[in-house]
Amino acid sequence: MSWRIDKLDKIAGERIVDAFLITSAISVKYLCGYFYNFEIGQSPFHLIPAALFIIPGGKASLIIADNETDQLPGLDPRLDVIQYPSYVYEKPLNFSSGFLEKILHFTGENQLGRARIGIESASMPEAVTEFLISKFPGIKFNNITQSLADLRIIKDPDEIQQIRASTHLCDVGQEAVIKYAEPGMTELELFSLVRKEMELTAAKRIPIMTDLVSGLKTAGGGGNPSSKIIEKNDLILSDLTPCLDGYWGDTCNTVIVGKPSAEQMNHFRLIKETLEKGIEQVKPGVKAREIDRFLRQRLANAGEYGHHSGHGVGLAYHEEPRIVPYNEIELKAGMVIALEPAIYTKDYGLRLEHLVLVTESGCEKISRFDHRIK
Amino acid sequence: MSWRIDKLDKIAGERIVDAFLITSAISVKYLCGYFYNFEIGQSPFHLIPAALFIIPGGKASLIIADNETDQLPGLDPRLDVIQYPSYVYEKPLNFSSGFLEKILHFTGENQLGRARIGIESASMPEAVTEFLISKFPGIKFNNITQSLADLRIIKDPDEIQQIRASTHLCDVGQEAVIKYAEPGMTELELFSLVRKEMELTAAKRIPIMTDLVSGLKTAGGGGNPSSKIIEKNDLILSDLTPCLDGYWGDTCNTVIVGKPSAEQMNHFRLIKETLEKGIEQVKPGVKAREIDRFLRQRLANAGEYGHHSGHGVGLAYHEEPRIVPYNEIELKAGMVIALEPAIYTKDYGLRLEHLVLVTESGCEKISRFDHRIK
Repeated sequence: MSWRIDKLDKIAGERIVDAFLITSAISVKYLCGYFYNFEIGQSPFHLIPAALFIIPGGKASLIIADNETDQLPGLDPRLDVIQYPSYVYEKPLNFSSGFLEKILHFTGENQLGRARIGIESASMPEAVTEFLISKFPGIKFNNITQSLADLRIIKDPDEIQQIRASTHLCDVGQEAVIKYAEPGMTELELFSLVRKEMELTAAKRIPIMTDLVSGLKTAGGGGNPSSKIIEKNDLILSDLTPCLDGYWGDTCNTVIVGKPSAEQMNHFRLIKETLEKGIEQVKPGVKAREIDRFLRQRLANAGEYGHHSGHGVGLAYHEEPRIVPYNEIELKAGMVIALEPAIYTKDYGLRLEHLVLVTESGCEKISRFDHRIK
Repeated sequence: MSWRIDKLDKIAGERIVDAFLITSAISVKYLCGYFYNFEIGQSPFHLIPAALFIIPGGKASLIIADNETDQLPGLDPRLDVIQYPSYVYEKPLNFSSGFLEKILHFTGENQLGRARIGIESASMPEAVTEFLISKFPGIKFNNITQSLADLRIIKDPDEIQQIRASTHLCDVGQEAVIKYAEPGMTELELFSLVRKEMELTAAKRIPIMTDLVSGLKTAGGGGNPSSKIIEKNDLILSDLTPCLDGYWGDTCNTVIVGKPSAEQMNHFRLIKETLEKGIEQVKPGVKAREIDRFLRQRLANAGEYGHHSGHGVGLAYHEEPRIVPYNEIELKAGMVIALEPAIYTKDYGLRLEHLVLVTESGCEKISRFDHRIK
């Protein structure tokens, strides 16, 4: 059960808004715990998956379709769940009107007709704002997206638990890569086995973003698994990023099916040592750009990597603090960051990644997998 | 290569709009062929995956992020592709501004500052309309969602080819269910093997919606595969709905691991015969509700099924023509419909589904799989 709705009271004061109408999947999950799995795309029976209407002081209503009942038992009882008719077969679909009527009712009932409503303007459909303006010409909207993103940088204990659970799936997946990778199978066949182990552990289907590439393709740093056959002595770069109930995990390993060259082995050891030393640098007060610089410099002789050295992970798979050259953000306890130094040559690439939690005294590895090349 | 942009000329006249700003994934794919895979959710580097700006008469610009290059070689050369800076690590992310600048530039360059713009109001972010209104106070928006949905009901030949390709994955998946289902495995293990066969055939990862449930759970008609163990003599209801490059396929079968009871066998035969007879009814001029009634009545003695008898399939997995009791829509050549009669008892459920293309003289099965219970 998540209930972070009280955190909006401060934003309401700072941003001078009277109420919030939250529409992004990430913020809905963050504030009230409701997660809509995006893996099969937009439902033909929803205008949007969910809307969360909040009045500072603690009143919150989640507006969802009446066929979305699975999560109701797990939601916080303080949350008022409002459901509209969605899928029907006996009469025409009318879910858009049904949804908007509930929005209208909440607005009217709570005398918000001339209110300033905090919204997320990228996820807020024009259909909703246009409808509200047509009914309440005095209503105003204020984009509060950044304030919500700022809130999410420091994770709450229940969020850390959820990231641990998702990262455990990464550990399982990386072990599966080592267990199953064989010359002669395709990248897709390997991914199928890796995904199976991760989903059996999760006990359900989960979205998984992945780089799973072999051979020369590792030089490009990533990509989806394809029908390319894994050859003897191919490196396999495996970046596994599963989403469990809304929270992402993220780790990367690079393995070989066969025998690494001396250069590959040296690169692997150098990256692994760099990652470990980099993790030792992580503590409150250190700037994100300092961690980036530490990792990047130690590998500079082997070639520049053209991407971040890491990033925050939570309800988004890439969020603040970005571990990048310009970032002045200071690390704080409760941040969760992925570190992923890499070396790319013209023939191959290696990347190793751990996920860590910044603690009061330093940091703790959330990913428990021990990187090894075979 | 898809190029259906000329079809908007007629809508422009009927709906009195000067230009179109298309933002739904479905319509972008339909009109210009660009498909953004939704399987890993919203990108943290996009405001929206794509926007398609169109001026009647044939001018069309697709606005996408600069790291989305995979599909560029396959797009129609008449399409002007405009890319904005998205992922960067050397400086702060600025993709929202980059995207909006491209929208602004197109609007100004084409003197649309006082134009009436046709939009899809559910997928159009408030961030975009608000931005345009702030720059061009005389601009107007007109929701043309329904006109686009109406266009999509009759499929073009290249769309039918794409639905055939996606439905071939269903055929492969249904054979895999029969091949692999064994007592003692979990639903998730079975799904993993089915998905593997489908993805190896597609030669890439694909989104798959599925009902894959066993035993008593079949009485509920569906649900995601879980860690429930498949027991001897369990029925397995397998509704497989893959999305290949934006186009969905859809079939359902029900199999048994063990021996069906006499009642189950009778129900299976009755549904299979009903489905075949129903398919014989499909031809231009017949109303959707007549097909629904035909299927529903033939199974009425075995119990009512509480869902549609079928639905259109294309860029959405459920679209018009809905095969439901109220629907007066007449079938026409070029429609693609799934028919899925079912019987549910208190102990189990069976559902069989084929996908068919309405032709000038009747219809043709797109799914080639022969339903069998084991």
